[in-house]
Amino acid sequence: MHRYERLADHLRERIQTGYYRPADRLPSVRALAASHGVSLSTVQHAYHQLEDAQLIEARPKSGYFVSPQRERPLLPPAGRTAQRPVEVSQWEQVREGTCVLPDASMHNLGRGMPDIDAPTLKPLLRALSRVSRRQDLIGLNYDTLHGRPELREQIARLATGHGCRLHPDDIVVTTGCHEAISIAMRAVCEPGGIIAVDSPSFYGALQSIRAYGMKAMEIPTDPDTGISLEALELALEQWPIRAIQVTPTCNNPLGYTLSLERKRALYALAQRFDVAIIEDDVYGDLSYAFPRPATIKSFDEDGRVLLCSSFSKTLAPGLRIGWIVPGRYHERALHMKYVGTGATATHGQMAVAEFIREGHHDPHLRRMRAQYQRNRNLMLDVIADAFPASTRVSYPAGGFMLWLQCEGDIDTVALNERLMAEEIRIAPGVMFSATGKYRHCLRLNHAVFDAEIAHAVMRVGQRVTEMLAQRADVARPETA
Amino acid sequence: MHRYERLADHLRERIQTGYYRPADRLPSVRALAASHGVSLSTVQHAYHQLEDAQLIEARPKSGYFVSPQRERPLLPPAGRTAQRPVEVSQWEQVREGTCVLPDASMHNLGRGMPDIDAPTLKPLLRALSRVSRRQDLIGLNYDTLHGRPELREQIARLATGHGCRLHPDDIVVTTGCHEAISIAMRAVCEPGGIIAVDSPSFYGALQSIRAYGMKAMEIPTDPDTGISLEALELALEQWPIRAIQVTPTCNNPLGYTLSLERKRALYALAQRFDVAIIEDDVYGDLSYAFPRPATIKSFDEDGRVLLCSSFSKTLAPGLRIGWIVPGRYHERALHMKYVGTGATATHGQMAVAEFIREGHHDPHLRRMRAQYQRNRNLMLDVIADAFPASTRVSYPAGGFMLWLQCEGDIDTVALNERLMAEEIRIAPGVMFSATGKYRHCLRLNHAVFDAEIAHAVMRVGQRVTEMLAQRADVARPETA
Ligand SMILES: Cc1ncc(COP(=O)(O)O)c(C=O)c1O
Ligand SMILES: Cc1ncc(COP(=O)(O)O)c(C=O)c1O
Repeated sequence: MHRYERLADHLRERIQTGYYRPADRLPSVRALAASHGVSLSTVQHAYHQLEDAQLIEARPKSGYFVSPQRERPLLPPAGRTAQRPVEVSQWEQVREGTCVLPDASMHNLGRGMPDIDAPTLKPLLRALSRVSRRQDLIGLNYDTLHGRPELREQIARLATGHGCRLHPDDIVVTTGCHEAISIAMRAVCEPGGIIAVDSPSFYGALQSIRAYGMKAMEIPTDPDTGISLEALELALEQWPIRAIQVTPTCNNPLGYTLSLERKRALYALAQRFDVAIIEDDVYGDLSYAFPRPATIKSFDEDGRVLLCSSFSKTLAPGLRIGWIVPGRYHERALHMKYVGTGATATHGQMAVAEFIREGHHDPHLRRMRAQYQRNRNLMLDVIADAFPASTRVSYPAGGFMLWLQCEGDIDTVALNERLMAEEIRIAPGVMFSATGKYRHCLRLNHAVFDAEIAHAVMRVGQRVTEMLAQRADVARPETA
Repeated sequence: MHRYERLADHLRERIQTGYYRPADRLPSVRALAASHGVSLSTVQHAYHQLEDAQLIEARPKSGYFVSPQRERPLLPPAGRTAQRPVEVSQWEQVREGTCVLPDASMHNLGRGMPDIDAPTLKPLLRALSRVSRRQDLIGLNYDTLHGRPELREQIARLATGHGCRLHPDDIVVTTGCHEAISIAMRAVCEPGGIIAVDSPSFYGALQSIRAYGMKAMEIPTDPDTGISLEALELALEQWPIRAIQVTPTCNNPLGYTLSLERKRALYALAQRFDVAIIEDDVYGDLSYAFPRPATIKSFDEDGRVLLCSSFSKTLAPGLRIGWIVPGRYHERALHMKYVGTGATATHGQMAVAEFIREGHHDPHLRRMRAQYQRNRNLMLDVIADAFPASTRVSYPAGGFMLWLQCEGDIDTVALNERLMAEEIRIAPGVMFSATGKYRHCLRLNHAVFDAEIAHAVMRVGQRVTEMLAQRADVARPETA
């Protein structure tokens, strides 16, 4: 880590913990240089980095100030869900979203793609190329069922960042977080069993429930405070639920992070009703707050938490490298891993292990967190301008997704069809529900933000505005 | 293809179809050069290649002769299996075999590893390295659910080799053949359903049946003629079987190839009882006979055959690239693919597509087929020398596996434990059965054959001989 980065981290922490507060004036460059024993240019560098992340702003002739608190947009309210376990539908929408090839002419605002073009990711390409030239040919050989030891070692090391002390042998490498979730569900629940999920929820998890013949008990979830523990408790009392599947840190699609207190309360509920927790942490390392929030797994004392994650959002999804820490379900998870894919591709695992070992992971994450937070703000500004005033938007604590709720009768599936001709795609809300709710909601990706994308978002806003106007024109629908 | 290779292929076909018969004298180099209009050295080259493959032999001063027919070893008889659907056990044995890291000091004769050190595979490493340097970063991006179009195009092209006319969109790329089988089973059978399998059978397929809560109906299978169609018919009459899972070409572990006639009869049975066929063709391209045998899929007229395969045995297993052609189950298969892994790693797919497109696939296969056939013969010779005379051995039509049957009370799980100290491992027969049968059988890998491996095989033979002698010493076991 460079000296200026260390200084920037230090200042960032002081801002985030409230030592410096919104609109406070920061020390002068000269004063900071003197107090930290660094050069003026180091301080300048650090301040520029924070400015870039929109944490501070320079005022001509007066110095640097902590950015005024962003006015948080009006959040969507928690949705209403069915009061009973349901079968999952909506495969057609999900299929359409996942069967498209990456296409340069298309502005796909709907997919879960991180920015893979960052300069801090270049060493990964070099590592991939280097691994191909290794004389021992390990990259071509079957890996063991658990995954490459050098990769599991690095994953265990990184896990201290969210409070977990893991042994490499606690970890099973998977073909993306998708396989991890799929393993977890089969390890804890039989066909016909019920899994409680936050709602709206990642459609991949919902479709797994469908594929394995299970049922989803959707729990109302608030974009600010997260999954409703009261509703969850009620559901646990009423139904023979086997597991709670949640994405409690930098949730997809809502963006909230469950507070530590509520994470503990959720864990206590799981203990009380003796159910497993499937904790999807795939966006956790992209929390804008640093250090990042702890996982539920970090205080799992009886091995009931199955932690699922991957490098798909932090590094690159094409690698298909994830992992599961299955706790007391280790043996069952290994069996499910074996029958699912036999082993994970070897070559990519070795390259990622090298990338982390060589120290490229932390700088990359630091950069991406700042970028995604900045882009969230920029995209929120465009949305505020371009969408009808009645639109509600999430205010993510991490990651690169925004959740929008339009007025009740805007159909975002129809919106998506209209956008097709303009080569724009969004993720319609129905994908995130077991039963086609959230039809008036949509998800947008802000991993990358530039003039073209701003323009695309504006066009989405225009179409929604038009749809709203058309509705007003036709006081009553022509066909009932 | 070089001119000499074309000539060698031509001669090979004439030998295999019986135009030239065992012990026949072949045309002189000069005569052949004249009749084919090629140089003397081209003919020499072609003859050397066939000599290498042990198809012909040179006799000093007399010229080249077709090798005398190898005396086929005494094959093991077909096993007896349970007469009803059973639950699959034996996970512990399989787990042990698949959780070991590749280890240079261990002679692992038990694993399903091809030879990945062939010079004809080097262009694949170059392709992998080249793909990493591509500026468009496609290798880092999510692939579509179906798999890369350029790879599916090549797979469709190769499929003409076994008589299939496929469109690239008929194919779904998978994370190895393992995922293909796992998808196929879930696509055609519900939990609790019954799948008929050849027996002995690939343990991965058996463990999938277990993991998905299905039952296996094991059908006796002959190392020469293959799965018993009579027993299969009886089973189909008696039980509500949903699918027949077979490896009809270059079977693992028995090595047989079902004749075309029997393949057709199997298909007719599936039609009559309206069940699906899961056809595992993972070794099919390694048939010693050229052109390779047709798949059952090649005459599938109503889409009931789900063809599963991969590049794990022909190129390299660490890539984890396979495919499924799910026929009428396409939509269900796509859904299972989605929930299992989301997509297959992108980078390796692109490299394999390049490797094939550049014309490296056929020469590599040609080389490996010849090598595996030669090694089969060499290993059979060592086995004949080193094992008790009562040992029966398979006579594979392709691939790189031999199946041995020792006398009835030799326990190959115990044998494997003894061999541990000598850093040798075999695959004990119990892995290939749902219920721990074939305890006196074992599988050996002959992909690579050199003095060290010959020595290792000899030691296995010695241990079996010792175990037999000890049994003779103790006329009656001390504990009943
Ligand atoms: C919450 C969540 N979990 C899991 C996944 C799947 O991750 P992977 O691509 O590693 O399989 C995604 C990706 O869309 C996601 O958003
Ligand atoms: C008959 C058979 N099918 C499938 C497989 C699995 O292949 P893959 O490594 O491509 O998953 C194997 C490998 O051992 C096999 O022998």
